[in-house]
Amino acid sequence: MTNRIGLFGFGVVGQGYYEIAKNDRPSLLPETIVVQNKNKERPHSLQLSFDPKDILNTPHDIGIELISDPIQAYDYVSSLLKSGKKVISANKKMLAAHLPELLELEKSYGGSLLYEASAAAGIPIITCLDCHFAGDHISKLQGILNGSSNYILSRLFQDDLSLSDAVKLAQEKGFAEADPTLDINGSDVSSKLTILSLHAFGRYIPENEILTIGVQHVHAEDVALAKSLGLKIKLIATVQRSQDGLSMYILPALVGESDPLFLVENEYNAAKVTSHNLGEQFFQGKGAGSLPTGASVYADLTKAIKGYAYSYDKLQGAKIKREKPLTASLEVIVSADTADALAPLIGQATIHQAQERYWSICTLATEDLIKHLPAIEANNVSIIALNGSVRQERILDSIQKLENVHLG
Amino acid sequence: MTNRIGLFGFGVVGQGYYEIAKNDRPSLLPETIVVQNKNKERPHSLQLSFDPKDILNTPHDIGIELISDPIQAYDYVSSLLKSGKKVISANKKMLAAHLPELLELEKSYGGSLLYEASAAAGIPIITCLDCHFAGDHISKLQGILNGSSNYILSRLFQDDLSLSDAVKLAQEKGFAEADPTLDINGSDVSSKLTILSLHAFGRYIPENEILTIGVQHVHAEDVALAKSLGLKIKLIATVQRSQDGLSMYILPALVGESDPLFLVENEYNAAKVTSHNLGEQFFQGKGAGSLPTGASVYADLTKAIKGYAYSYDKLQGAKIKREKPLTASLEVIVSADTADALAPLIGQATIHQAQERYWSICTLATEDLIKHLPAIEANNVSIIALNGSVRQERILDSIQKLENVHLG
Ligand SMILES: NC(=O)c1ccc[n+]([C@@H]2O[C@H](COP(=O)([O-])OP(=O)(O)OC[C@H]3O[C@@H](n4cnc5c(N)ncnc54)[C@H](OP(=O)(O)O)[C@@H]3O)[C@@H](O)[C@H]2O)c1
Ligand SMILES: NC(=O)c1ccc[n+]([C@@H]2O[C@H](COP(=O)([O-])OP(=O)(O)OC[C@H]3O[C@@H](n4cnc5c(N)ncnc54)[C@H](OP(=O)(O)O)[C@@H]3O)[C@@H](O)[C@H]2O)c1
Repeated sequence: MTNRIGLFGFGVVGQGYYEIAKNDRPSLLPETIVVQNKNKERPHSLQLSFDPKDILNTPHDIGIELISDPIQAYDYVSSLLKSGKKVISANKKMLAAHLPELLELEKSYGGSLLYEASAAAGIPIITCLDCHFAGDHISKLQGILNGSSNYILSRLFQDDLSLSDAVKLAQEKGFAEADPTLDINGSDVSSKLTILSLHAFGRYIPENEILTIGVQHVHAEDVALAKSLGLKIKLIATVQRSQDGLSMYILPALVGESDPLFLVENEYNAAKVTSHNLGEQFFQGKGAGSLPTGASVYADLTKAIKGYAYSYDKLQGAKIKREKPLTASLEVIVSADTADALAPLIGQATIHQAQERYWSICTLATEDLIKHLPAIEANNVSIIALNGSVRQERILDSIQKLENVHLG
Repeated sequence: MTNRIGLFGFGVVGQGYYEIAKNDRPSLLPETIVVQNKNKERPHSLQLSFDPKDILNTPHDIGIELISDPIQAYDYVSSLLKSGKKVISANKKMLAAHLPELLELEKSYGGSLLYEASAAAGIPIITCLDCHFAGDHISKLQGILNGSSNYILSRLFQDDLSLSDAVKLAQEKGFAEADPTLDINGSDVSSKLTILSLHAFGRYIPENEILTIGVQHVHAEDVALAKSLGLKIKLIATVQRSQDGLSMYILPALVGESDPLFLVENEYNAAKVTSHNLGEQFFQGKGAGSLPTGASVYADLTKAIKGYAYSYDKLQGAKIKREKPLTASLEVIVSADTADALAPLIGQATIHQAQERYWSICTLATEDLIKHLPAIEANNVSIIALNGSVRQERILDSIQKLENVHLG
């Protein structure tokens, strides 16, 4: 049986999938490739189309959507599903926004939609959540879900680079998007967390509801402080289940050396899943890049051909409802250049001065943090979660000793 | 659609599966349970059968084989496959010995056989190898595949226990088999490695061909030496691919702190897979126990019902051939109570004396090690692989300094 495959997008990921198919099974190469820019110079002589109808209105069996634009992507993917096609997408922004509608289309028209590459690129975390936790009750999921942020943090810790130099290096190495703010502000992590939560907990929390702070305010003194405690800082996405729903938050967090997330360096991603039956499961792999991401797309393709579809068993057959996360109380270290920047955020908590910075260790509600995000952004306030790694008193002690630490 | 399920064996794993099904979907409980011992007191009032024909000669759709006896297990599983049934097994010894025949039965009679629980219990490593590495080229697989050996090593390193006390504790905690030699001599690791290699590389190396040394000779001085180097010792199973085939070996090995295997403690298992497209993927989870293992069985059951079957794509459609592993050269630390015990093994290498033991650091061929296994066993010779973690000179240095280390 041959499969007629249509591919939208021939960028980093599209070319990764193409290369893998070419070397493995040329019958899994796309018959049609649609891209956008007629004037772009191409380093290959493949025949490209600029008209989506060449896939949408032509009898293809499988559509693979790997474009950068989430709005067009939704158009393509929903059209394909309305024709009952098997569809593969890597578009986390689009999926996080539209999974409820897309699942309805899948059900109504009998097609299928797979999207392993959309969260943690090369790690088969969606498939594992979807088929290995059957009958299990997941209580917590934590992950490192942005390769470039993690690469940047590795440079801060291993090479004592400044944040801006680390961002530049990440771009040079091809780990950061052209506009690096999209990486360092954690915005693509929230899309991924929305997607993973649907599979892990059967609950749909739109990404704009999730407290999201990236690595953009991590300061050299934070790094020195963490090091003095034998800890690292990682950009950690957390979902925690309680009886009433899910609490979810993404922010830089301290990680101790007994936590498997401690060893996740450079462009690697990871996910740690705690469940009743399986205890703690941990997955680590490449979180970005042409071949790792293309490999997940290619695995989806072979699965789709075999008839594999996600079971969404945690939804228990119900329609997806949009929900809000619960408020969570987070133990955090807050620091900034001025005491004034801290005051509105921390309530009655004490402010300490060290290393020409102002610090407070306190417990803040995710809801309040979300309200203060504009001020946090404007005042470059650093917020680091303790993440259960260390007691508050030990941190205070270390902050006081920071005075004597030379910062390179 | 209801599925009529027959279950063989109602021990640790069978009861784990049963509990999960009962809480999740009672329609996935077995209709018939066959066990062996008529005189055993049962802590439950379930109706049990003692006659395999109650499953084999009665119309069931799915057979689950969770018995301790590999010979009977082969009988049951092959009978079920000959009736074209969907079959699930956790029996690593049986599978490692009979996968070639079982796959032929699967093909000939149209049934299917899943066995996620047989290797690394709760980790979905077989499914991931089978469907996430499509079109990829795996070059190396390393794993910690025996929970009780790993638990024992954790006790040696964290609590300075002697080997015999650690073994006792593992038994008390329920992590070791009644006859602990089966755990500590690594024999079940070789079964698992045979199974994993088939999925990762499409090659079948019977387990008795694999150099297998367990934790039974790890000595307190080995622990002290590793600690003095900032390393740990783990029982590592390795498969390495080269153009001519696979080299495979299982032995205690040094692991450095940047290796994700470094953090795998207690009853946890792990697998690290290096491939062309995905770089390094790492999986960690529980390697034994009623619920973790039952959870893998239950996940297999839900997959089997959806029609999922292993693709064995690395076999590329070929029939399984029995192969021998290639000889590999291993850098090792060899030590024993007498110089005479070392001499036949190490050839021209120098023998050092420290801490009332005799040591040599040398490169040995797996083939030669296999030949010397009886002498290694008889003389309680400790063999620890360097595993690329440290240079030989640093070890020598540390051995010499051991003299001055007090061993508790
Ligand atoms: N890069 C990664 O490591 C990675 C990892 C995980 C997920 N993803 C996701 O994968 C998707 C693709 O990412 P990428 O890195 O491959 O992007 P990219 O390198 O920027 O390539 C985007 C491709 O999409 C095409 N395109 C854009 N708009 C289009 C439209 N309206 N119609 C048809 N084609 C259009 C572009 O056409 P032209 O060639 O004509 O410009 C280009 O070929 C994104 O959703 C991204 O979030 C990427
Ligand atoms: N335990 C683990 O953590 C673990 C992990 C991974 C894989 N496994 C594998 O899973 C399988 C089961 O292990 P287990 O720990 O559950 O063993 P177990 O606790 O010893 O239970 C074995 C069960 O098999 C039954 N049985 C033995 N021989 C039989 C026969 N000929 N016909 C019918 N029933 C028979 C026994 O019957 P009675 O009740 O009458 O004695 C008992 O119910 C083994 O292959 C093991 O290697 C175990």
